[in-house]
Amino acid sequence: MQFSFFRSSYYTPISGYGVAKVLDSTHPKFNKGDLVSGITNWEEYSLIMNPESLIKIQQMDIPLSYYTGILGMAGVTAYAGFYEICAPKKGDTVFVSAASGAVGQLVGQFAKLSGCYVVGSAGSKEKVDLLKNDFGFDEAFNYKEEQDLNIALNRYFPDGIDIYFENVGGKMLDAVLCNMRVHGRIAVCGMISQYNLNRPEGINNLMFLILKRIRMEGFLVVDYHHLYPNLFEMVLPLIREGKITYVEDTVDGLDNAPAALVGLFSGKNVGKQVVAIARE
Amino acid sequence: MQFSFFRSSYYTPISGYGVAKVLDSTHPKFNKGDLVSGITNWEEYSLIMNPESLIKIQQMDIPLSYYTGILGMAGVTAYAGFYEICAPKKGDTVFVSAASGAVGQLVGQFAKLSGCYVVGSAGSKEKVDLLKNDFGFDEAFNYKEEQDLNIALNRYFPDGIDIYFENVGGKMLDAVLCNMRVHGRIAVCGMISQYNLNRPEGINNLMFLILKRIRMEGFLVVDYHHLYPNLFEMVLPLIREGKITYVEDTVDGLDNAPAALVGLFSGKNVGKQVVAIARE
Repeated sequence: MQFSFFRSSYYTPISGYGVAKVLDSTHPKFNKGDLVSGITNWEEYSLIMNPESLIKIQQMDIPLSYYTGILGMAGVTAYAGFYEICAPKKGDTVFVSAASGAVGQLVGQFAKLSGCYVVGSAGSKEKVDLLKNDFGFDEAFNYKEEQDLNIALNRYFPDGIDIYFENVGGKMLDAVLCNMRVHGRIAVCGMISQYNLNRPEGINNLMFLILKRIRMEGFLVVDYHHLYPNLFEMVLPLIREGKITYVEDTVDGLDNAPAALVGLFSGKNVGKQVVAIARE
Repeated sequence: MQFSFFRSSYYTPISGYGVAKVLDSTHPKFNKGDLVSGITNWEEYSLIMNPESLIKIQQMDIPLSYYTGILGMAGVTAYAGFYEICAPKKGDTVFVSAASGAVGQLVGQFAKLSGCYVVGSAGSKEKVDLLKNDFGFDEAFNYKEEQDLNIALNRYFPDGIDIYFENVGGKMLDAVLCNMRVHGRIAVCGMISQYNLNRPEGINNLMFLILKRIRMEGFLVVDYHHLYPNLFEMVLPLIREGKITYVEDTVDGLDNAPAALVGLFSGKNVGKQVVAIARE
């Protein structure tokens, strides 16, 4: 049996997707000193028994932590969800919830690159400013300051929403359904507002799926590993040319990882949550 | 302006989709004595100002009322919903709610013709017997006799549902979501249990869209008029060879049309509800 022994450098909570350095390896593909990204564990040193799933990092001019985000699972999630599920066309109106998060910030920028009109929602003024000033969203709003999400969405989308990139679920989804355009598409990436409820909130407006002929599709990144090369081909030049921005929220040390994970559910993080275990 | 004057023969409530005879016409496509199907009005004689949307009936060996159902809007709805939205494969497991209705009975038979395993739900023993004995469903159950729809579905689909043809909404949809298979497809055709509620019931299990990577898509027959030739090409031989069954529930006279319409919402009809205004 082949195995590789890694020194973890960066670590993202939830998925255990991280960046690590190979300390020792009997697998022919990996050598001591190589940097890799992929699923490891919440620990400083890991024994990886199935290293085939890991990606060897080749581009050393990119911040290593990016391989946990824009060049990792979040990147492929945004890429697959937006380009494969949402089938965007130039001029489409796009709404992204949790828009400053690891995935949302990329979806918004992909949408702008595709010639769409993009609005994002987030949970603080700081995040709303980030959406408009750093990520180039056309509009953004703080959902916590809106009395009625239906009215808020109608304000930004008077002619309706073509594409909704769903990250939150609950009341936001119900309001979005009322504001979708005919033949709209909803990529269901996550429902973070619902994960810690004993019972998810009821969604009452699914009738609009029929009236507006909406396609609503859930997806998981595990089905899209084959798109890593496409993501890299698109995103690496954009990073190097400064045409795409990726904001991270980094805490230091494995001891702080649990609090960082919990913070995701109350929106404490600003941008992609990263846990730095060692800096190289 | 061209118009045609029709004598109505058969009439279906809700949509005003009917079969009629031309009594007079200034439109070159239609002549006195022609039989047509399409959108008319709830009346014995109609002045149609836009006859282009009507279909001239060519096959005189088929019961005329079939042009309000299997060869009309219900037929195209079942055809488009099943073949275009559900993308069936041989061996798929298929669940149809309101399965003895105008559309459901066709979806079940299309699914059997495609080599699928098909289960239907309906609201009476008579309808359940019809599903199993006349339409060839593999299994059928009376949803009113089930304490827990989740358990009922698990009984008929121990390995899950690939395709759900949604006609009812509400609790049935919530139970189906728990029983879907990975990469399942839900064609949302109708939600008849919800239409007369002040507020539709909340659907709590949409998280399964992500976990099981489900595509849920609403559709309306108005987008699929181009499929009438495909429907006719497939279904006419099947009707003539007795390989497809279509059950209608006919009431006589326009006076009985409102009660027939209201009856749809409590499942009073057995099969496609037809109102006969004149018999030729």
